[in-house]
Amino acid sequence: MRLRAKNARAASTGERTLDSRPVTEASQTQGETTLAERLVGGDKRALARAITLIESDDPLGWDLVREVYPRTGRARIIGFTGPPGVGKSTLIGALTKELRAADRQIAVLSIDPSSPFTRGALLGDRIRLSEHFLDPGVFIRSMASRGALGGLSEAALQVALVMDAAGKDDVLIETVGVGQAEIDIVDHADTIVLALMPGSGDSIQALKAGVMEIPDVIVVNKADHPMTDTMIREVRGVLALADDPGGWKVPILRTEAARGEGVAALAEQIDLHREFIESEGTLESRRARNLRSEVLGIATSRMRRRLEETIAGDARVQDLLEQVVRREIDPASAASQLLEHGDHED
Amino acid sequence: MRLRAKNARAASTGERTLDSRPVTEASQTQGETTLAERLVGGDKRALARAITLIESDDPLGWDLVREVYPRTGRARIIGFTGPPGVGKSTLIGALTKELRAADRQIAVLSIDPSSPFTRGALLGDRIRLSEHFLDPGVFIRSMASRGALGGLSEAALQVALVMDAAGKDDVLIETVGVGQAEIDIVDHADTIVLALMPGSGDSIQALKAGVMEIPDVIVVNKADHPMTDTMIREVRGVLALADDPGGWKVPILRTEAARGEGVAALAEQIDLHREFIESEGTLESRRARNLRSEVLGIATSRMRRRLEETIAGDARVQDLLEQVVRREIDPASAASQLLEHGDHED
Repeated sequence: MRLRAKNARAASTGERTLDSRPVTEASQTQGETTLAERLVGGDKRALARAITLIESDDPLGWDLVREVYPRTGRARIIGFTGPPGVGKSTLIGALTKELRAADRQIAVLSIDPSSPFTRGALLGDRIRLSEHFLDPGVFIRSMASRGALGGLSEAALQVALVMDAAGKDDVLIETVGVGQAEIDIVDHADTIVLALMPGSGDSIQALKAGVMEIPDVIVVNKADHPMTDTMIREVRGVLALADDPGGWKVPILRTEAARGEGVAALAEQIDLHREFIESEGTLESRRARNLRSEVLGIATSRMRRRLEETIAGDARVQDLLEQVVRREIDPASAASQLLEHGDHED
Repeated sequence: MRLRAKNARAASTGERTLDSRPVTEASQTQGETTLAERLVGGDKRALARAITLIESDDPLGWDLVREVYPRTGRARIIGFTGPPGVGKSTLIGALTKELRAADRQIAVLSIDPSSPFTRGALLGDRIRLSEHFLDPGVFIRSMASRGALGGLSEAALQVALVMDAAGKDDVLIETVGVGQAEIDIVDHADTIVLALMPGSGDSIQALKAGVMEIPDVIVVNKADHPMTDTMIREVRGVLALADDPGGWKVPILRTEAARGEGVAALAEQIDLHREFIESEGTLESRRARNLRSEVLGIATSRMRRRLEETIAGDARVQDLLEQVVRREIDPASAASQLLEHGDHED
């Protein structure tokens, strides 16, 4: 089984990789310089290549992350979530401009939405980030959803890690949507920004009902809308319910990202939140928790993939599934047989 | 390892269970009558007990589903999704009344929302179903979210199966929220109803962007609101984009569920959708696909749980995770070591 062999190799050489030792088997060499070295040196093309390797689940990608991992942990990871259409890309574009003015190196990772069904469409509003395309201090990358089993959340953190290793000061991760899958992705962030706009009634209800997590910073974008005040009152009402005495006070900001208004205040609140979690020690515990769940997530993804490989090629398994469809064997018993089968297979 | 033993037993006896043979080890006997027999006979208390067993992941629950599984496949499974606050419970209450008038046996399964964080709150609007509590033809049950790893989606189908086996004509599954997790749950349904209300701008955007699946029936509840016409125009615009020539035409209904208005039309559209998918053969293929994914989902959940059990009790694994947090071993290499470890463990 290909994946198994790959894992075994990673495990055997992965105890601890020295930064200085070029792992020629693992890294693509260009002359004498490895991909990892070029990445850590801030080479934009090396970063792009690294992300492609991770996205395509190439073993070289995993090897690369292993090699540069000791260099990570320095960048601020900031997650942006919220329903489609509120102007998150515009907001991130404006924030990038603000952060660039302070000479910070920025990487943006946009997780493209796609329906689990074929009718899915890309939003295509990445173009709003286009004014930064020529700035060498800004790196922008989109990543497509790989569906429920692909472990997009895990891949997103791997990408954030290489962006971090490449010397970016801020890694901005954008997701579209407000469900559990999106929460899993931005959960890797040190600071989570929820973007809303007047008319985001569904999101307010979701916050109120506890279906959506309370973020660290709330932005009401498109604040020139006449319903903005009503909206902010509603958000404030929800936050009052979830108030955590002694904890971080979630600020509610008004922005008009398209005109850059309120964006300096957003940058400031992100700074303040960072200071707060550093001084309280929550940054460290949050990262520890997220890294542990990353390990478990990757392991689960791999197990599921092994299982799917077993299923795809095996006539007996296909027959078992047919029996389930004919209501002869129930799904749980079939799952048990599948696991037994997988255990004895290799 | 307890779970492994449990699975092994299920596999060894589960090849095919005859309906007629009471599995005394598996079913709780009451005098001479097994729980499965009472369940299939329509005993309400037996159904309640069965669901509790499934919810608590008791092996008796799995055994019970195995025993009654050949009796399932008859009920209509109807899923309701949509943002909190649109009145889904009221709508389901009104629809239940409508279906009861046609003398159909109804089961309602409400999946309670809960935040992945401790600030989560129950909506508590189940009380809107209270007028049916005394009707012996209506069975109502709530199920709490067990978080990302608990396999709530799989458990929900198991519950739907026992409701089906108990002779219910319609199983109504309600989720709160519009994310991937909710889609996974209602995906077990034959017909998916999306409930919105005027002001559901976020959901419209999510449909438009392809983040949310196009459902089979759309209901705009609270249709006495002045913005209803605007809302319906927007929904119609989104549906036009996703139009599937020759496919099912998704109807957009106006309801005021609290006053029962439009609910007869909803019942009719559910009937029509059922006829459509039966005549097109999509009911069969949809159910086959969902049952296959249920098998895979249960298998994955169990693998993940095995892994977590391995982790919890093992000092070496804890040490490995600490090394990840100290940035000495990257998450993917740690996951590989974990899987190696699990493979060699028993």
